Amino acid sequence: MVKDTIRPAIILVRPQLGENIGSTARVMLNFGLVDLRIVRPRDGWPSLPAAKLSAGAFEAGVSGRIYDRVEEAISDLSHVYAATARPREMEKPVVDAPKAVQDITSRMGTQSQSGILFGSESSGLTNHDVTFADTILTYPVNSDFASLNLAMAVGVFASAWGQTANERPEGFETGSEAAPREELIGMFKHLEQELGRAGYFHPPEKTPVMVQNLRAAFIRGEWTSQEIQTFRGAIKALALGRGKARIERE
Amino acid sequence: MVKDTIRPAIILVRPQLGENIGSTARVMLNFGLVDLRIVRPRDGWPSLPAAKLSAGAFEAGVSGRIYDRVEEAISDLSHVYAATARPREMEKPVVDAPKAVQDITSRMGTQSQSGILFGSESSGLTNHDVTFADTILTYPVNSDFASLNLAMAVGVFASAWGQTANERPEGFETGSEAAPREELIGMFKHLEQELGRAGYFHPPEKTPVMVQNLRAAFIRGEWTSQEIQTFRGAIKALALGRGKARIERE
Repeated sequence: MVKDTIRPAIILVRPQLGENIGSTARVMLNFGLVDLRIVRPRDGWPSLPAAKLSAGAFEAGVSGRIYDRVEEAISDLSHVYAATARPREMEKPVVDAPKAVQDITSRMGTQSQSGILFGSESSGLTNHDVTFADTILTYPVNSDFASLNLAMAVGVFASAWGQTANERPEGFETGSEAAPREELIGMFKHLEQELGRAGYFHPPEKTPVMVQNLRAAFIRGEWTSQEIQTFRGAIKALALGRGKARIERE
Repeated sequence: MVKDTIRPAIILVRPQLGENIGSTARVMLNFGLVDLRIVRPRDGWPSLPAAKLSAGAFEAGVSGRIYDRVEEAISDLSHVYAATARPREMEKPVVDAPKAVQDITSRMGTQSQSGILFGSESSGLTNHDVTFADTILTYPVNSDFASLNLAMAVGVFASAWGQTANERPEGFETGSEAAPREELIGMFKHLEQELGRAGYFHPPEKTPVMVQNLRAAFIRGEWTSQEIQTFRGAIKALALGRGKARIERE
């Protein structure tokens, strides 16, 4: 098994059934994953069904931390995948499980951690959830019967992880490190706030899709902390300026 | 999806819980498998929990035939795998799921069908069951927590099957095309001009390196023409809306 490396986190977003949380923990540990994060579990936490279906996985090392919002659950992650069976109208790369695992392991020499978002049993991830992801993760399912059980969906990724993790070359390093996600989210909010002030979001009903498209474009660059700082300086300059532009134009 | 081929059969040997039979049927059909055979289900058949957890897979095409003995269940198959996490004292080849799928698909031109035996929840396959198999199928599990849920074990094989046999579901686009470079350069110039007006490039001797860093960050996103247009709209809004922000803040 992989040791001394940062293994990907699994983030269940608004899961409904404790049973599925427990089954998720079990299959994660079956394949060597331990970092489980749960955003607003509908049936509460801790959960008796989850404990039962976990077959002891929580006691054996799976974490199971609870968060109130997706942003908080992923704030320390550098690369985020959104698992979805439905196509989204977003400009994001789409990978299958072996490719996701390959990408994650190639980044593992750095201190950056990746995570995968899985949506609720009834409705999956919202488009808003997906805006936080760099990459779409999808499986080669039967299009006439595409809806996987939640824990099963995690299991497909986990088994791909187990399949590849042993073969990871040692000491493989990529270039520079993408910033923790909270910095990128801070930059989004800063930009969107200034665009809002400037009257950019028009008509108002199109705001969500405009925000979504902008985020999708920016997220693909895997910006470093330094780049985010630089661009925030640029936003600030554009928004505040020094009165020069107005004077020139008036 | 795979057509006109003989897809492998899944054989559950003495499964205990109807829930697991239902979940097995669901994940089989998720990845395009339809031939489910069940040897002596402990809790009887048909089964309400199985129907519930199948999410309609039986109605949608999964067979679910019942047999009294393993020999009967596999009598028409040409190649049989035994899924087991425990090593057996038997001289049989051992493969993982991708290798099993590869072997099965390479035999599919012929009329021969393969099948995979999965044992009961509590004790797996007996050595007697395994004697009927040509090949051992095993997964790269965490040796400290090796016991998979039964349906999950089927799911790992089924997803490996889907990975090799199915095509990517319709409707997913693998990223659209990056804009011609001149559009990106136009965007750079627009941004840099507005930043210049706003007094961003300070001190002046650092301008080249600031420009270089900003361009490097943007170029990595491989933006489409649409995204470039969107962002140029944002630059324009920020640059023109500047007066509003100043007034609010003063």
